Amino acid sequence: MIEVTLADLPLRADLVGKSPYGAPQLDVPVRVNTNENPYPPSDALVADLAASVAAAAVELNRYPDRDAVALRQSLAQYLSRSTGVPLTSANVWAANGSNEILLQLLQAFAGPGRSALGFEPSYSMHPIIASGTRTTWLSCPRRDDFTVDVDAAVDLVAQRAPDVLFITSPNNPTGGSLPPPDVARLAAATPGMVVVDEAYAEFSDRPSAIELIETFPRKLVVVRTMSKAFAFAGGRLGYLAAAPAVIDALLLVRLPYHLSTLTQAAALAALRHADDTLASVAHLVAERNRVAAALTELGLRVIESDANFLLFGEFADAKATWQQYLDAGVLVRDMGISGYLRTTIGTDAENDVLIAVSATLRKENQ
Amino acid sequence: MIEVTLADLPLRADLVGKSPYGAPQLDVPVRVNTNENPYPPSDALVADLAASVAAAAVELNRYPDRDAVALRQSLAQYLSRSTGVPLTSANVWAANGSNEILLQLLQAFAGPGRSALGFEPSYSMHPIIASGTRTTWLSCPRRDDFTVDVDAAVDLVAQRAPDVLFITSPNNPTGGSLPPPDVARLAAATPGMVVVDEAYAEFSDRPSAIELIETFPRKLVVVRTMSKAFAFAGGRLGYLAAAPAVIDALLLVRLPYHLSTLTQAAALAALRHADDTLASVAHLVAERNRVAAALTELGLRVIESDANFLLFGEFADAKATWQQYLDAGVLVRDMGISGYLRTTIGTDAENDVLIAVSATLRKENQ
Repeated sequence: MIEVTLADLPLRADLVGKSPYGAPQLDVPVRVNTNENPYPPSDALVADLAASVAAAAVELNRYPDRDAVALRQSLAQYLSRSTGVPLTSANVWAANGSNEILLQLLQAFAGPGRSALGFEPSYSMHPIIASGTRTTWLSCPRRDDFTVDVDAAVDLVAQRAPDVLFITSPNNPTGGSLPPPDVARLAAATPGMVVVDEAYAEFSDRPSAIELIETFPRKLVVVRTMSKAFAFAGGRLGYLAAAPAVIDALLLVRLPYHLSTLTQAAALAALRHADDTLASVAHLVAERNRVAAALTELGLRVIESDANFLLFGEFADAKATWQQYLDAGVLVRDMGISGYLRTTIGTDAENDVLIAVSATLRKENQ
Repeated sequence: MIEVTLADLPLRADLVGKSPYGAPQLDVPVRVNTNENPYPPSDALVADLAASVAAAAVELNRYPDRDAVALRQSLAQYLSRSTGVPLTSANVWAANGSNEILLQLLQAFAGPGRSALGFEPSYSMHPIIASGTRTTWLSCPRRDDFTVDVDAAVDLVAQRAPDVLFITSPNNPTGGSLPPPDVARLAAATPGMVVVDEAYAEFSDRPSAIELIETFPRKLVVVRTMSKAFAFAGGRLGYLAAAPAVIDALLLVRLPYHLSTLTQAAALAALRHADDTLASVAHLVAERNRVAAALTELGLRVIESDANFLLFGEFADAKATWQQYLDAGVLVRDMGISGYLRTTIGTDAENDVLIAVSATLRKENQ
């Protein structure tokens, strides 16, 4: 075949020169770069999931339930149980990972001629999906300690009037969270939709912004994922809670039959084992605190985290230090934040390795 | 919770007043409205799939292979085997249904300020996904017999210069296909990308447009799905074949980790049983010809079809006739084509019911 390259194709101008998103997928002893839960599913969950998938597979020649009602009902029950807010399937929507949820939200409420604002550094897919939907991206910097200056943010939001406001709480990659009263102040100041990305909510003691949906039904959307606390990253299941009208809007932009029969069956199985799976959360939180204390002890600066990861530094050259960790068999994440790296909380043994390697590098680099 | 409706939300202006896409999902004896394969997966496939999913599930806490290389390799082997064109994983891309493939293609090569052209009536998701990506939609009508006037189409394509040309072959919902030389003439006339949607290719004797990729590596993309011949509609697996540079472009717009570990494992299992599953194709083609002859015998006009469905009429009031079929327990599809309905080829017994109901309605309506 004649060799053609990307440069030969009529790619959209705004994509020319861009690189694909993605953390390196490397096979190293300690992979702590994508905030996965280090604990695999229980044998009971795997057995239930396999049986559920086998039962669903006999009808794979048929399209899935386009509206995934049973799954949304189960997700609503989980959220109601964990937040105390009464929710039904009409309040919940699900898709292939929270990325697809965010895409659908921007397709419905943003896009060309509209804007979205986020407090950065934050989840890097927010501006990427904004760009993919040709939404104007507005960036509001966090303080030097990565917290949000809520007073200044309220003023900025009122002034810039974004069509969509992103609030990531706990924030990835920095780890801090915003209490609901601060989210409420920001929501009150926003003319458009407010998307609270709570991918790491289960690791935080803060109440969820889900309790604010009743106060702001016209604008508040809380996005969740099963990738982190639920240890279901490979299953790809993101979801949201909001007033039912928000889901009516997403039905206009979702690709029909977006969620496979197998995904629906597997996620339902994972939800049946929620108590068991989520039992790992308390241990990961304890480990987070142990690792934070140990890194602090080594003289590193550790940003306070409500999630299953830590942003830590300061390094003279974060990129070079990332490579040193990798050479020592530990894959951490360089988020492009000057002087800082991010590590996921792994198993106890993985955390021990991270601490030991950090101690060695600390000595070498001094 | 305060009742808010869609009208209260800041929905994009171009979505206001629209209805969600989707055929009715009704529980009736004979469901022949979404071109599914009526034959469920074999016991052997279900067992292999369940075992594969169970094996993959033990690592569900980890993200999937973002680039789905093993699956793409297996799809490339299948395409090479069935078309004789040598292809590797670098020529193939996969996503959650061909709808997501089409979305990614329009995100990369169309969007605001660009245009896409199709020969209508055709697959209704083409203009819907164009709209969702704010691509200008250009419609070229087919002849009264639903064939494409290729001479006129070549002139129109040269004149309108679309950024993306859609060629659906076999065409849904009308059933006819275009031979590769006609596709080549249209491709030569198109300045932008040419997307040949071959969702129903396995039901046709025509050679695939995949053999044209070598001639038009800068523009030709062939889209396939496992939903139809592979009887895998519930598994959601669409794919494409093209020059590797096209896949490089899609990497810039695909949501990271879009394809779950479970989907990849299940589709690989389905491909291992391809010969077995695809054995149903010849029988469905024979049944299509039997149903077409029977409906013609009743005095109905049946459009020549290369697919697993038939467009038939002419009815004075297609909507009313659709309801009469439904009342008789047969769910056919009203595609909004004046005077016509579409029926999928079902099991032999389902086809017998369709023919019998058609005969009864024919008498009643005369």
